[in-house]
Amino acid sequence: MTPFLQLIFTLTIIILAAKSAGYLVTRLGQPSVLGELLVGILLGPTLIDLTHLPFITDPHLGEIIYEMGELGVLMLMFIAGLELHLSDLTRETRASAYAGILGVLVPVGFGLGTGLMLGQPFTLALFLGLSLGATSVSISAQTLIEMKALRSRIGLTLLGAAVFDDVLVILLLSIFVAVSSGGNGLTETALVLLKMIVFLGASAAFGIWLLPRLSRLVARLSVSQGSLAFAIVILLVYGLAAELVGGMAAITGTFMAGLMFSRTPEKSVIEPGLHAIAYGFFVPIFFISIGLGVDLANLGLDAVWLTLVITVVAILGKVIGSGIGGRLGRLNWRESLQLGVGMISRGEVGLIVAQLGLDEGLLDQTTFSAVIGMVILTTVVTPPLLRASFAQPKPAPQPGGQEEVS
Amino acid sequence: MTPFLQLIFTLTIIILAAKSAGYLVTRLGQPSVLGELLVGILLGPTLIDLTHLPFITDPHLGEIIYEMGELGVLMLMFIAGLELHLSDLTRETRASAYAGILGVLVPVGFGLGTGLMLGQPFTLALFLGLSLGATSVSISAQTLIEMKALRSRIGLTLLGAAVFDDVLVILLLSIFVAVSSGGNGLTETALVLLKMIVFLGASAAFGIWLLPRLSRLVARLSVSQGSLAFAIVILLVYGLAAELVGGMAAITGTFMAGLMFSRTPEKSVIEPGLHAIAYGFFVPIFFISIGLGVDLANLGLDAVWLTLVITVVAILGKVIGSGIGGRLGRLNWRESLQLGVGMISRGEVGLIVAQLGLDEGLLDQTTFSAVIGMVILTTVVTPPLLRASFAQPKPAPQPGGQEEVS
Repeated sequence: MTPFLQLIFTLTIIILAAKSAGYLVTRLGQPSVLGELLVGILLGPTLIDLTHLPFITDPHLGEIIYEMGELGVLMLMFIAGLELHLSDLTRETRASAYAGILGVLVPVGFGLGTGLMLGQPFTLALFLGLSLGATSVSISAQTLIEMKALRSRIGLTLLGAAVFDDVLVILLLSIFVAVSSGGNGLTETALVLLKMIVFLGASAAFGIWLLPRLSRLVARLSVSQGSLAFAIVILLVYGLAAELVGGMAAITGTFMAGLMFSRTPEKSVIEPGLHAIAYGFFVPIFFISIGLGVDLANLGLDAVWLTLVITVVAILGKVIGSGIGGRLGRLNWRESLQLGVGMISRGEVGLIVAQLGLDEGLLDQTTFSAVIGMVILTTVVTPPLLRASFAQPKPAPQPGGQEEVS
Repeated sequence: MTPFLQLIFTLTIIILAAKSAGYLVTRLGQPSVLGELLVGILLGPTLIDLTHLPFITDPHLGEIIYEMGELGVLMLMFIAGLELHLSDLTRETRASAYAGILGVLVPVGFGLGTGLMLGQPFTLALFLGLSLGATSVSISAQTLIEMKALRSRIGLTLLGAAVFDDVLVILLLSIFVAVSSGGNGLTETALVLLKMIVFLGASAAFGIWLLPRLSRLVARLSVSQGSLAFAIVILLVYGLAAELVGGMAAITGTFMAGLMFSRTPEKSVIEPGLHAIAYGFFVPIFFISIGLGVDLANLGLDAVWLTLVITVVAILGKVIGSGIGGRLGRLNWRESLQLGVGMISRGEVGLIVAQLGLDEGLLDQTTFSAVIGMVILTTVVTPPLLRASFAQPKPAPQPGGQEEVS
């Protein structure tokens, strides 16, 4: 098979497996993203090792699939932004800010404490803490979209908190790297902050003033799928600018791009098209590619143990930190719990932090594997936990009564 | 920049450039595909060399873009199939068969003659002829879609002829390779024919009996973009099976897949979604990637001369061969000309034949470059020629009269 046929083969399996597994778990009352994540782990090196099957000769196939998946998460966050209004997001600023900030600080503290208790030196323990800080709300956003709760008070607070979370983690990481490499922490921090402000300010200004005019102009031109292609270009540019100008995560950029398009009348044209591209092709690849990156079979016993410890710490840190943040932001207890659960899942930023730590010698190989394992586990547990936290309390079953099958 | 950011950057430029150039040429009365092809050449090594800019460090970027483009052409041919009915295609079988068969034999003969006149040995001259045989109708199909003429008599005959063309070229090539490597031509030919019959038979049987039921079943399931994802899976499987089972071009397979879906009621759901994915993302990448593969700047003078000769021979061969075929199939002169022009453009199969010839020592480097140049040139000239061949004859301008500007 040529490399291209190998790609076609792999994509066929991925889309088929993702959609089938997604459907099966919805029959069990779970969000489809859980099924897609789990089947991704089965397709990965843990069991099948899809991108290294005997007839796969293209060594870059895994990289291509990974990058297509990353395009999927950019689109996913764009759609999350598209389904909101800018005004929605600023309605819950107070709760978002508290939940975002405490949702970083508490896990960082917990991680630091855990590292110290395990006998790690202070710098390494602090870095372990940092790698527990970064939430990735793409999985929760997807789950809330499936539950039609993205525009609920919790959904809006969650998305806002994710922006604060992203800003704070990147700030802390930059300070840490600057200080630990003997640089001037203050100058470095000011620079990082300045870059973020420039990106957020410029992209909001462009999005509010110029984008609607450009979008209207493009919609009038007779170009096949012109508005959609324009939205994709803007999505990509915002993602690129978030990384290159703002030093932030690309998904934060595409989320902002979606938010900006949500104000345009062309939203009604863009949304179905982007929905098709995302959920018909790229997003399933994203969910599967998460699993393709994990090898559960080759984890040593100490790594398994450490993974479990770190995962529990990571979950408790977010639920407690963001939950208290939610309470301070005047959510009730139940809403605060839902918010905290929605913040559990880690994602690309956690992986980036861990990779940086490994490269700089701030995480050893075992801790690195454990952090990767934690990212996967928190991602897998978030959809069912989030759904459970939204479930209406049922009346207690009658003793000896028959269970209903519906 | 990380490899992924390099990919985002490249995709941004490609989609923006393709859509802008496509729009500009439609203002000049040309099909947008012409603009996309031309801007692709500018973005390629001829001028800008997009995938090798100074900050592009990922050596596989070009390969990823190429493969995304190939996904685009698979989708393009699926859509061409989707816009037809199976019964449309069999209405003009006679003209299709003549035009397809003569459209191969005449260029092969012309190429053989040209090679012999240039002093090449018989085997090499025959191979040059073979590399002129294979039409790729994706560009013509796209042009006819833009002109809303795909379901015209010419459009239907063209698509049918492309199938005959594909079958015949692959048969001839297989016989040639078998004979020139000392094998038994007859056994080899029988085997190639058998594989084609198995693929065409099995895929038609599956598409006619099983596909509609499966499609209806999937449409009833609550899976996000379920019907669209199902269509994409089938598209990919047909493309894969065409190559692996039938030994044919993947685009012939996806064209058949589209044809099969055109009979299902789910067509109305699949079509807008696939249109979005194709024209909003993958198809522009395909058109640009054609140009990315050409380097006009580094062609030697003898290669330029040879390219022009071969291109003229290739164009005349198709117009005359398929044109006569059309006449034998009872098209009128004008229609036969349109059909012959629609068959001019060469594509992936031509490139595959040329690559094979280079690998086997059946084409020298200069002739190889010239064949690649011919594939590009025939692709670029087809859209405007096809449009011109459809134009209504205008009354001759009055001498001294003023030109109207509309």
